[in-house]
Amino acid sequence: MIPSSSPAFPLPPAVLDALRQLLGDRLVTSAAVCDQHGRDESIFAAMPPAAVAFARCTDEVLAIVRLCREHRVPLVPYGAGSSLEGHTLATQGGVTLNLQQMDRLVAVHDEDQTATVQPGVTRKALNAALRDKGLFFPIDPGADATIGGMCATRASGTNAVRYGTMRENVLNLTVVTPDGQLVKTARRARKSAAGYDLTRLFVGSEGTLGVVVEATVKLHPLPESISAAVCAFPSIDTAVQAVVQIIQVGVPIARCEFVDSVAIRALNGHSNTGLPEQSHLFFEFHGSETGVREQVALVQDIAGEFGGERFQWADTPEERTRLWEARHNVYFAALLLRPGCRSVVTDVCVPISRLADCVNQTADDLRQSGLLAPIVGHVGDGNFHVQMLIDGGCADELEAAEALNARLVTRALGMDGTCTGEHGIGLHKQAFLLEELGEAPVALMRQIKHAMDPHNLMNPGKIFAF
Amino acid sequence: MIPSSSPAFPLPPAVLDALRQLLGDRLVTSAAVCDQHGRDESIFAAMPPAAVAFARCTDEVLAIVRLCREHRVPLVPYGAGSSLEGHTLATQGGVTLNLQQMDRLVAVHDEDQTATVQPGVTRKALNAALRDKGLFFPIDPGADATIGGMCATRASGTNAVRYGTMRENVLNLTVVTPDGQLVKTARRARKSAAGYDLTRLFVGSEGTLGVVVEATVKLHPLPESISAAVCAFPSIDTAVQAVVQIIQVGVPIARCEFVDSVAIRALNGHSNTGLPEQSHLFFEFHGSETGVREQVALVQDIAGEFGGERFQWADTPEERTRLWEARHNVYFAALLLRPGCRSVVTDVCVPISRLADCVNQTADDLRQSGLLAPIVGHVGDGNFHVQMLIDGGCADELEAAEALNARLVTRALGMDGTCTGEHGIGLHKQAFLLEELGEAPVALMRQIKHAMDPHNLMNPGKIFAF
Repeated sequence: MIPSSSPAFPLPPAVLDALRQLLGDRLVTSAAVCDQHGRDESIFAAMPPAAVAFARCTDEVLAIVRLCREHRVPLVPYGAGSSLEGHTLATQGGVTLNLQQMDRLVAVHDEDQTATVQPGVTRKALNAALRDKGLFFPIDPGADATIGGMCATRASGTNAVRYGTMRENVLNLTVVTPDGQLVKTARRARKSAAGYDLTRLFVGSEGTLGVVVEATVKLHPLPESISAAVCAFPSIDTAVQAVVQIIQVGVPIARCEFVDSVAIRALNGHSNTGLPEQSHLFFEFHGSETGVREQVALVQDIAGEFGGERFQWADTPEERTRLWEARHNVYFAALLLRPGCRSVVTDVCVPISRLADCVNQTADDLRQSGLLAPIVGHVGDGNFHVQMLIDGGCADELEAAEALNARLVTRALGMDGTCTGEHGIGLHKQAFLLEELGEAPVALMRQIKHAMDPHNLMNPGKIFAF
Repeated sequence: MIPSSSPAFPLPPAVLDALRQLLGDRLVTSAAVCDQHGRDESIFAAMPPAAVAFARCTDEVLAIVRLCREHRVPLVPYGAGSSLEGHTLATQGGVTLNLQQMDRLVAVHDEDQTATVQPGVTRKALNAALRDKGLFFPIDPGADATIGGMCATRASGTNAVRYGTMRENVLNLTVVTPDGQLVKTARRARKSAAGYDLTRLFVGSEGTLGVVVEATVKLHPLPESISAAVCAFPSIDTAVQAVVQIIQVGVPIARCEFVDSVAIRALNGHSNTGLPEQSHLFFEFHGSETGVREQVALVQDIAGEFGGERFQWADTPEERTRLWEARHNVYFAALLLRPGCRSVVTDVCVPISRLADCVNQTADDLRQSGLLAPIVGHVGDGNFHVQMLIDGGCADELEAAEALNARLVTRALGMDGTCTGEHGIGLHKQAFLLEELGEAPVALMRQIKHAMDPHNLMNPGKIFAF
């Protein structure tokens, strides 16, 4: 674990009293609950807040933000706690604002293909509510994250290659800003040129510029036809080369996921997938019946050129659900390969023409390191993850993993890529962000933060040093 | 015309000398050139700058921005001058920075489907350069605007329904910020979660936060099959109803444009289109051959339900070019319906379920007003324009047009739409922006502007009052 020096900001009694009055037993100060809210899936040791406030409505969020501002108390917005980069750790103590109870579906406008939700609605809950509408919400990070959290990290997932990320799928946000104002960023029109793009300013700001209290997202019609398959390849290189070609010829593929042999071993153990321990691609095709047939034929041809073996089809909705649940479970399945381990997860994304080089060189690095580390990726976007399974208590392993991550980021940046495709900066990638963009862009981000949150109260310590 | 009170900010002699030294005869102070740069397609009277600087490279832009900052001289970035909302008017005099000579295609990465360009490259020049690559850049406002200008206004056009707007199609920008820093907003990966979305902060900021000196945009593969057609409808209502249904059933249509009978009359006069003077839809379909056939069959069925007459096909590339050039020329063709007139162009965009009501009520308004005003629109997005042709010298006509625009904006906002789908706020829609978003979001925009440009030098007076 990376040790923390949590200064455990003491809560003024006046704040505690006011919060208790506002929230009753939804203001919790027990060590267990504070500790649970002070950790995430990253390798940072817990940094607990002094209290956790469970809000149920926008008025409560407004009151909490204003109270914390008045008393200069740090405030950390919290969704499902599934961050991989330390986003929800209370680096300066203070109050964590848990939004899970704000989980109401406010409105579905199926004729406009939009849904308006509170921030605590999870992606699975949203899709369950849409089941009879012929519509779905495509963004699917591995965890069943909340929509609020997904806005905060600019999340994506397996469908982004076709449907985009949160950046493209959020129409408007209602945000409580650090100065206690309620800001609705846009109307519900599909496009707008009305002033600065406040929606995109908040999407990806990792809770440092405010608390999302409502989001309107785009929905997409369930395709007439869906088909999914897995295909084994002789090597990492051949699988990735096939993807590059699929993207370059313009197949409108809905999902195109790389899963290496170590990850397959994890899945076989956890989800009973029974696949050969080789590199695989997991595909999904959306369209009309003939459209899907055309895509499948093209992709089978390309896969064949690179030694891809016969497609195994997931034909029924149940088989498809099983397939993608298995894919989403890779993270947790991999943890079982080494009981008690922690993960260091990389997240680079590179232009597609450089993807094969980037993955191959990384696989070489991994072989030399001796680390146990499945590789999976949303390779249609040029994005892949190495999940290094380390003994959290072993400084040498942690150092080796961090060194490999740093080498990988430098490699990706050398290919005009990014240190993070979808997990965000959080606590963990602040040096990489500077390496990626340089001083001036980060100084500009800081300038915006200073203007909006001069006392550095909103999720302090994330993305960059204040 | 809306009169201006241009205070004609006097240029300090030191600035003039330094600019002349830097640019030679590319620093122009003649009344004709200044006057030409002080007007656009809006109904505002000219507000000329004191000088026009023609930059050829980023270093010159940096020097000009730093010089203007040092001497507190307002600076207006200028592309093709095709704004409809007064964006390029020099409200406080100062220097206009003409970027048309920065027109180099820096790089095309065809294997990654990206192009990096200087800001003065126009959309047509970019597509001409891509002709042999099997790729195209889809964003097409009516005018042959520059990519820099299109970034500034968050432009879209006829292809946005399928390919998105500048918001979705800009991967990164290099910007000279008001404090004279060079900021590159992102790398060339398709997605990134690396900090605040500076790219989207600049896209749509109308030149108020800096000068775009380089842009990397997404390209798209030319579809295997393209088909275009026009179809006449018995009324405005039936044409728009057909569009709503086409969008709601999820046809991945590439272009879907409404052109009313008055606009058809203008086109017949200007482009010899020979179409009946009725409401029309102009369609384009992109995909595989069978995919296009499927889309066409679906759209023909829907059009038929709403009384759409037989499709007239534009089969060859030349016929398609003629069709879409005619569509793009509607604005100028309409001006010829009333020689010497000026246009007041509306730009609302509403959720698709409200589009038919919005267009119908607006057509009623127009009939009552007696104004000559074609209606055209990117109706697949819910966006349409009324181009009111008025005598620029007649206060009554201007007032009637402005009143009709205000009524239309109020109507669109009542439908959860926006006052501007693609033209931007500029000088003209500042009151509407406040009506649309309220005080708090506009105050937040102003906060960002104050932080980045405390002396209000960069395109001052646009979007909101400083």
